[in-house]
Amino acid sequence: MPKKLVILGSGHMASSLGHSLYTQGHRIVQVFSRTPGNAQVLADKLESKAISKIQELELEADVYILCIKDDAISGFSKMLTKVLPNDIIICHTSGVNKPELINEYFINRSLFYPLQSFNKDITPDWEIIPVFIEGNSSTTTMLNELASSISPRVLVMTDQIRTHLHLASVFANNFTNYNLVIAKLILDKADVPFDVIRGLMIETVNKAFSLEPHQTQTGPAKRGDSSTIEKHIRLLVAEFPEYRSLYKKYSQIIRQTYMHENSRSNPSSSSTD
Amino acid sequence: MPKKLVILGSGHMASSLGHSLYTQGHRIVQVFSRTPGNAQVLADKLESKAISKIQELELEADVYILCIKDDAISGFSKMLTKVLPNDIIICHTSGVNKPELINEYFINRSLFYPLQSFNKDITPDWEIIPVFIEGNSSTTTMLNELASSISPRVLVMTDQIRTHLHLASVFANNFTNYNLVIAKLILDKADVPFDVIRGLMIETVNKAFSLEPHQTQTGPAKRGDSSTIEKHIRLLVAEFPEYRSLYKKYSQIIRQTYMHENSRSNPSSSSTD
Repeated sequence: MPKKLVILGSGHMASSLGHSLYTQGHRIVQVFSRTPGNAQVLADKLESKAISKIQELELEADVYILCIKDDAISGFSKMLTKVLPNDIIICHTSGVNKPELINEYFINRSLFYPLQSFNKDITPDWEIIPVFIEGNSSTTTMLNELASSISPRVLVMTDQIRTHLHLASVFANNFTNYNLVIAKLILDKADVPFDVIRGLMIETVNKAFSLEPHQTQTGPAKRGDSSTIEKHIRLLVAEFPEYRSLYKKYSQIIRQTYMHENSRSNPSSSSTD
Repeated sequence: MPKKLVILGSGHMASSLGHSLYTQGHRIVQVFSRTPGNAQVLADKLESKAISKIQELELEADVYILCIKDDAISGFSKMLTKVLPNDIIICHTSGVNKPELINEYFINRSLFYPLQSFNKDITPDWEIIPVFIEGNSSTTTMLNELASSISPRVLVMTDQIRTHLHLASVFANNFTNYNLVIAKLILDKADVPFDVIRGLMIETVNKAFSLEPHQTQTGPAKRGDSSTIEKHIRLLVAEFPEYRSLYKKYSQIIRQTYMHENSRSNPSSSSTD
């Protein structure tokens, strides 16, 4: 059933999430932003009403969705206590924070977290974006209905999941991005365009998810190819000394993981090894 | 102009490269494999002739392409000296090895290296696969023509590029795959399906290449968010102690890189931070 929603915020999350909810037939009755122009731009796209004063907020929406920065949630939700009833369903969209970051005045404070890094200018593929929800039971019934309308994958968030998910994302995303920072520096030095490795990166990610990352590991550390590792370390010492210890640490850990497997089978070989 | 080619090997590289060359109108006159069945399967796909004895090799092809394991190139090319003229154009397809890995009898030994990790069952997108070539000048003229027919991106390989490219690939691909190994372990522990982060990984790679990885870095280490880092380290110590030092090393290096930038501007926030 279509819901009556208020979106608070006008950034990447507000825009991408709002657009998806609108497309699925929900009514975005208001878009709030302190900057009237920003609220208007998004409201126009969502056939919604732009507001920039909390006193103008609709009082009877089904869900109020906070799409604002993590460090603004606490203070802003406190301001909202002056104008909104305490039994509305109000959620924030920050996966790393508990629903309790919202002011305790709101008895149905909750979480609605689409796991993706959104960008206003890119239409995301909601088929592969899971939505995590968290709250009391009546709240999650409503949020589950909302989430299911935009994503095939709705999961319940808990404290245990929250920290593990964040830690896993730091390894998978933040550290991978930094690997690309390093790769680009190395390629720049040899005058090789960074995007020569784009196809290989896409393939690396595709393979790891279509098989299992443990199976798709390749490279000198996995093979126990110490002469190549020595050659790389010499190059790092000469040109990129700040990354030598990271390379060594990785190679040791990978070596350790695959040591026993290598002794049972021949090393495999591929063009990217 | 269509070329007359012999492919030696029948694995993933032979199959993907052979198919692409065949599709572009080249004639694959022979497919060699020691295992007659394997040669036949690929030969059938390429309207070619399967052979499993080097004595049957055609003597007048334009290019002989070795698609075999790195550690077999030296020995196998030595055997070929008994049956092939020394002035044929013969190349291997291993990016990490010099053309000189082929026996010195062959004066036109060379490299033809499509930078991708191929799989027989997946049709690769040649629009994003660069081909590196290396050899003497008359050889590279021929190889350049061949490479240009299958890829929009042909680059000349040198010793300087070879090591830098390999080192960059180790960071970008091998270490990223291992980050996914770690991420999966962490998610498994919290009973969260690994593929909830698939969309985020795809987006991470897309962003890093459409912008610049230095700009697309996010996360607690970049923001200097030491309370989150402490929380992650406590979780690692308790459940995944073997990855604690890798996490710390990364966080230090990222912190170092972005320290000055953070002091000039506000930390940015996103759903994946």
